[in-house]
Amino acid sequence: MQTQGLDSLFLKPRSVVFVGVPRKSGPGALNPVDNLRRWGYEGKVHLVHPHVREIAGLPVLKGVSGLNDSADLAVISTPRETVPLIVDQCGAKGIRALIVTNQGFAEADGRGRELQDAMVEAARRHNARILGPNTLGVSNAFERFNSSFMPLEREEVPIGLICQSGVFFVGSKQLVGGMGIAVDVGNACDVSAVDCLEWVAKDSRLKAIAVHMEGIPDGRRFVEVARRISSRVPIVVLKTGRSPEGARAAASHSGALAGEDKVVDVAMQNAGVIRVDETQDMVDLVRAFSRLPPMRGNKVAIVTLTGAGGIILLDQMRRWGLEPARLAESTLKQVQQLAPEWMPLSNPIDIWPALMKHGMRKVYRMTLRDVLRDPEVSGVICVALALEPAEQASLGALEVIRDSSEKAEKPIVVWFYGSRREETARQFQESGRALAVPSLERGVRVLARMAQYESRRQTLAMR
Amino acid sequence: MQTQGLDSLFLKPRSVVFVGVPRKSGPGALNPVDNLRRWGYEGKVHLVHPHVREIAGLPVLKGVSGLNDSADLAVISTPRETVPLIVDQCGAKGIRALIVTNQGFAEADGRGRELQDAMVEAARRHNARILGPNTLGVSNAFERFNSSFMPLEREEVPIGLICQSGVFFVGSKQLVGGMGIAVDVGNACDVSAVDCLEWVAKDSRLKAIAVHMEGIPDGRRFVEVARRISSRVPIVVLKTGRSPEGARAAASHSGALAGEDKVVDVAMQNAGVIRVDETQDMVDLVRAFSRLPPMRGNKVAIVTLTGAGGIILLDQMRRWGLEPARLAESTLKQVQQLAPEWMPLSNPIDIWPALMKHGMRKVYRMTLRDVLRDPEVSGVICVALALEPAEQASLGALEVIRDSSEKAEKPIVVWFYGSRREETARQFQESGRALAVPSLERGVRVLARMAQYESRRQTLAMR
Repeated sequence: MQTQGLDSLFLKPRSVVFVGVPRKSGPGALNPVDNLRRWGYEGKVHLVHPHVREIAGLPVLKGVSGLNDSADLAVISTPRETVPLIVDQCGAKGIRALIVTNQGFAEADGRGRELQDAMVEAARRHNARILGPNTLGVSNAFERFNSSFMPLEREEVPIGLICQSGVFFVGSKQLVGGMGIAVDVGNACDVSAVDCLEWVAKDSRLKAIAVHMEGIPDGRRFVEVARRISSRVPIVVLKTGRSPEGARAAASHSGALAGEDKVVDVAMQNAGVIRVDETQDMVDLVRAFSRLPPMRGNKVAIVTLTGAGGIILLDQMRRWGLEPARLAESTLKQVQQLAPEWMPLSNPIDIWPALMKHGMRKVYRMTLRDVLRDPEVSGVICVALALEPAEQASLGALEVIRDSSEKAEKPIVVWFYGSRREETARQFQESGRALAVPSLERGVRVLARMAQYESRRQTLAMR
Repeated sequence: MQTQGLDSLFLKPRSVVFVGVPRKSGPGALNPVDNLRRWGYEGKVHLVHPHVREIAGLPVLKGVSGLNDSADLAVISTPRETVPLIVDQCGAKGIRALIVTNQGFAEADGRGRELQDAMVEAARRHNARILGPNTLGVSNAFERFNSSFMPLEREEVPIGLICQSGVFFVGSKQLVGGMGIAVDVGNACDVSAVDCLEWVAKDSRLKAIAVHMEGIPDGRRFVEVARRISSRVPIVVLKTGRSPEGARAAASHSGALAGEDKVVDVAMQNAGVIRVDETQDMVDLVRAFSRLPPMRGNKVAIVTLTGAGGIILLDQMRRWGLEPARLAESTLKQVQQLAPEWMPLSNPIDIWPALMKHGMRKVYRMTLRDVLRDPEVSGVICVALALEPAEQASLGALEVIRDSSEKAEKPIVVWFYGSRREETARQFQESGRALAVPSLERGVRVLARMAQYESRRQTLAMR
């Protein structure tokens, strides 16, 4: 038998034993076995429960010692007083990767801290490692495996996630744009966020890694590891506990020391990672990195149906360090001929008057083609309508933008407005390489931070 | 016949004549007549077109002079060179309210400016007033009337809107939360944003008024009018053209002078209005004002299923001037008994451990009841799950929060996470008095600005 690395044991286990699993299964039971069945996990699943012989159609062992073989991974969800002993038993069976899910440890009270220390000690004796406690564990959509008792959506997106709370697992779609491979480090009593970052980043399918952290206990190593990874794949960090109140709460949530916020800022910069202030900036940016070509420069072309929208974009661009591209004279020559003579086109390119005469698709297609060709342009923001099907036929540009984005080597973000904005954005999300953003301002922030990452990445690469 | 005020003529016309209307009707034709039919407008509709005798089943006049009677309102959509003459003809027929929709006037070129001046002069001769040009006109869901050729959604929401661009009409749902009564002032060559603010605010059904403006030409009057209205109903302003680039673009979009941004800030403060920086803050806040009770103070109780979410909220609260309420000792007494002994409850109130034992609904209901009673609490932020129906039954708190909000005299905002967040938020939006917010941070900003408004309102009232 080959010796597997810890990253494989935790993230691609060929066998798993759940110690402490609900008696019931089916909807509402929060049974991890149901989760695995739904996901189609193909590895071996063992269950341990002291009082039941069968759960969800699977045989149940009385204790860990009843295992014939070892297992790659154990997921422990038993009352806190029992955990150190069970860790010891798992270690004795040769299980080297352990996940402890329950709360009530260092984040809770003195007794909890004692128990946490005791279980780490037990693991050390057997050369095993603990992820958690106070965690939903791991999730790997590509391997069809997750250790969580909460119902999760499986989606093979090229997004990695390291977080310090289950909310990022259950809410991954809205907080980070989904998760291909994810680890919730919980209290991080042994396996740290930096360990997980290294493990997750090994998967070359990932195009962006999202990190939520409440504290950085090993700052130097974080900078070192993150910098190495950042030169290849962008890391987006939401570090919480910025405020005194938040820092205090972090101490009692995961036992993390939040650290001086300005020091954290400097560390993040040195690490080449992108720090965001808000969850919605995180999801926008991770989504963007996971599907758009890089933003090489800070010059933007705006293709808009609304002058007011163009102004809102310009205001935000100034705030975030982007500039309207000075288009070459040749760029809009053909489109200009479609516009009324009283409407000279510049950037923002307001194509409404032209399209009222010549139709949305023709004007939008020509304009996008021209600006994507212009070497002054590093990225494009589109404003487009999303209406009922009948109106969409004459006023929609969905297909045009999608087609243009297929071969584009510059990032395109689109803001849709109108009665069908949500459906259209969703349709858009599922295909094509452009990104639909929920507000004009968020489109600007996405491109600004992509430009920032690309410029830092080039600096790091030159060192 | 009674003499109607201008506000009635524009916003509640009993008869309207469209001068220049598409020959075609039906989907994709962008015919305002279709819009009115769909909305169920009960007033009289006249059409004018030089070459067609019938459009959409209605008889068509060759010219305005062919009208037997006068009309309350004329909507003019003809080539720019013809507009001054048509304005004159409408005036001669005794029509006092005119909307000019087309582009190509002061925002375009020198000739456009001449034509705009000429049409204003023509209107003055007849004591008529012009809204526009470069506008979608007016929309009044309560009266089932709108003057626009763009397909709009009709919804009787208690929201007023004054804007300087059609994008706010077509995108009203996503930019301001819908529109009960709305005016697009366009170039504002005659009727100004301040006039419209006065007219719209007359309707006592409105609970919030959203204003988008690119310039404030008559600052003193704006402050005077806005202050008077603000003491009764909140006004939320998005003033664009903040950046030099944006200001230049505003000049060519609507011909507006954007003004020194800091001066604008001071004017807004004096006016008691709330200025927002982003469109999404606008929609959040207008929605909040239109359905929540006032936020009297800056103390927040957080009811959460996730410690990490609590920390994110605390960070944002510090940034926006809100504080966690110091709950009275008696407040969580009963709920505390449901929590494990190692988990003392404080604010943020992390109820996850308690509900894993006693069920979501019981714990959530008791907690919400207690914090709403606590006099220290000015508003509540809830974090709640939105899952598939089967899981929702055990883990959902939708109904509990909705029921609790019915009689609450404090604002409640909710952030839903999980696979059914969107449907749940939508369901929530359609009933109940709490507000579903799309991110934790936006929930904080909403409550912070509601608190700000209430405190300013009280100061204004005391003067």
